[in-house]
Amino acid sequence: MDVAILIYEGFTALDVTGPFEVLSRLPEAKVRFVSATPGMVAADQPGFGLVAEPLDSMERPGVVVVAGGSTYRFLDDETVLSWLRRVHESSVWTTSVCTGSLLLGAAGLLKGREATTFWYELESLRCFGAEPVSRRVVEDGKIMTAAGVSSGIDMALEICDRLQGPAYAQAVQLGIEYDPQPPHDTGSVDKAPAEVVRFLRDNLAGSYGPPWAQRAAQRS
Amino acid sequence: MDVAILIYEGFTALDVTGPFEVLSRLPEAKVRFVSATPGMVAADQPGFGLVAEPLDSMERPGVVVVAGGSTYRFLDDETVLSWLRRVHESSVWTTSVCTGSLLLGAAGLLKGREATTFWYELESLRCFGAEPVSRRVVEDGKIMTAAGVSSGIDMALEICDRLQGPAYAQAVQLGIEYDPQPPHDTGSVDKAPAEVVRFLRDNLAGSYGPPWAQRAAQRS
Repeated sequence: MDVAILIYEGFTALDVTGPFEVLSRLPEAKVRFVSATPGMVAADQPGFGLVAEPLDSMERPGVVVVAGGSTYRFLDDETVLSWLRRVHESSVWTTSVCTGSLLLGAAGLLKGREATTFWYELESLRCFGAEPVSRRVVEDGKIMTAAGVSSGIDMALEICDRLQGPAYAQAVQLGIEYDPQPPHDTGSVDKAPAEVVRFLRDNLAGSYGPPWAQRAAQRS
Repeated sequence: MDVAILIYEGFTALDVTGPFEVLSRLPEAKVRFVSATPGMVAADQPGFGLVAEPLDSMERPGVVVVAGGSTYRFLDDETVLSWLRRVHESSVWTTSVCTGSLLLGAAGLLKGREATTFWYELESLRCFGAEPVSRRVVEDGKIMTAAGVSSGIDMALEICDRLQGPAYAQAVQLGIEYDPQPPHDTGSVDKAPAEVVRFLRDNLAGSYGPPWAQRAAQRS
């Protein structure tokens, strides 16, 4: 199974490494990072970069994964968007992690579909004609979108389950010992204390600007 | 806070990316990959590599993270082991993910201490005078060891909690939306069906050989 993970300058490291680690364990998997700017591609946090191959290096990837991160700058990058439309035609699964779903939306692939993304950007999915769903993994046809950053692990395990059955997915889960026990239970906006949500929302607005939907409204 | 993540040829991608993603969010964090073989270092799965700086590029890292993976080949690498002993003298936290704890053990840092590792290697910790504990994150003094692959995320959140307090750790958790909901609940040997554990154990033995403790016994 050929798996193409789309990255770009400012991708989020864990968005792609979760799916990479899980999907590399599929039988005869070939997992590659691809980019419109091949070579070394820097993540959004200093010190992390991955080498990507050209977009067309994989003819017909069975699974396509779109990373999140500094997605905004690429929402009108026709090279990326037309590649997405093309590989989606023959993919078994087209997937995204975090704000990667905004790219799927910009490519026109989410029109009339349910989808999810990083909680901060959930309402922005409406800009692309999608129906936002606040769930960790959302499936609509052969498109599977995941919530923020770490959710790519859960999404990729779900893909393993669909492609190879439950026992295989269970073995992959045990192989990466994915038995989460974080010190707190604050991984979603519904579970985190209101002041923690407010702190982080202000922080994200300061670092990245307002959510895409607000920017788009201001521009029009 | 300076964070040094030790990698080597055959490290496991998610072992290091979980802690990288979490610890990069510490205030004024500088997180760098370091290696005895600086430059591009390949992971244990094809298609993934990270650029590492020389071991001594960070003078006195506050947090040291030792990745797991093809650890066996480096258990008598004196360059790595003496570096570990040196940085441990001044570190605030010395940590490991997966089989990274075998390296801490080989450096002599786990003698008489409780520690954990990837379930497949748990008993091997005894080779280094450590007391194996089957828990996701084990703390003994300023050494924090984590279980397999994905557990580095939980360990790093625990480090955030200790360094910056619970509200900060909660915000980081929400920032990476770590609200795990995998399709199955089979991430530990206690939870996975017996046949899944057997399948994976055979698979690991075929790919990596028997656990370290068995190899060491055969050699002596």
